[in-house]
Amino acid sequence: MAMATVENGVNVQALLDAREVLKSAPQAAAFTWRATCEWKKGTHSRTSVQKFFGLGEEQQHKAASSFDADHPEIFASEDNGITPVEYLLVGLASCLTAGIAAVAQNRGIQLRSVESTVEGRMDIRGILGVDSDVRNGYDDIKVRFKIDADASKKEIEALVAQSQKRSAVYDAITNPVNVTVEVV
Amino acid sequence: MAMATVENGVNVQALLDAREVLKSAPQAAAFTWRATCEWKKGTHSRTSVQKFFGLGEEQQHKAASSFDADHPEIFASEDNGITPVEYLLVGLASCLTAGIAAVAQNRGIQLRSVESTVEGRMDIRGILGVDSDVRNGYDDIKVRFKIDADASKKEIEALVAQSQKRSAVYDAITNPVNVTVEVV
Repeated sequence: MAMATVENGVNVQALLDAREVLKSAPQAAAFTWRATCEWKKGTHSRTSVQKFFGLGEEQQHKAASSFDADHPEIFASEDNGITPVEYLLVGLASCLTAGIAAVAQNRGIQLRSVESTVEGRMDIRGILGVDSDVRNGYDDIKVRFKIDADASKKEIEALVAQSQKRSAVYDAITNPVNVTVEVV
Repeated sequence: MAMATVENGVNVQALLDAREVLKSAPQAAAFTWRATCEWKKGTHSRTSVQKFFGLGEEQQHKAASSFDADHPEIFASEDNGITPVEYLLVGLASCLTAGIAAVAQNRGIQLRSVESTVEGRMDIRGILGVDSDVRNGYDDIKVRFKIDADASKKEIEALVAQSQKRSAVYDAITNPVNVTVEVV
């Protein structure tokens, strides 16, 4: 079988096994992802990520990561990092890309390269409070994939569609998520 | 006036000026934020951010930034970066934090520290396809701010509420955004 030689680096068997285990132990599927953010100065902040909860216990990434966010110089800021809205694009592109690799492995399709560009259009009159009819967030986001794989155009399109169907970030952005903000 | 001594590092006058300019030149408010993503191996990808479009022309951050995303070892991945869903938490925390600093400056409130924790709950049976009634994305996200400022608890709560009201990321996560994905 050609499938035996396909190697995209995703351990699909482990994911299929996890699926079976979680069918009878749904409480283990409850994850909590976390971040802590510290204001630096002006619009500059630094957010750290390492610990999370899942499979019934505390977990952590191998390394602690931290991310600077700021506004650009054209907003009279110091541009000490990318903007908060750009982090959404990072999440969206990386989620769809990981999904494509996992689905390709599961379908026996060898990937050679997967590249994408994401563009999010936003009217900044919203956040500046110029016009209350203009939303604060993105008007729309376009993702374009360029994929080189051992598969037909139709199979590649089906890969991308399946990744989209199972993407946590795609869901969180296209559908409403309940967010509560409190001061302690 | 006490306001004259408040210094949170946000140039509010520039933002107020921008608001006036954009009232008569709304086309300059059309921004496009961009990211490009490259699959590395398995669920690992690297997303780069530098250029964007706004104020009628191409712009760029002072520096190019790149962000690794991956799945953790408990998902049989290599944990070469935080997960895509965690990037949403980075965006949310940093957006609300920048907003708090800007609103505080505008209201003459001196901030000493702004810290937050963000927790997003997710049932991974969604992305694993165990149960089609379980959504892929977050069930809910909680943000908790701890703020030390020269203001009453009520004023601090009002700061946070106003930041939330004008936050691009809060809007993009709590309300639907149209996302199109295509293969070129």
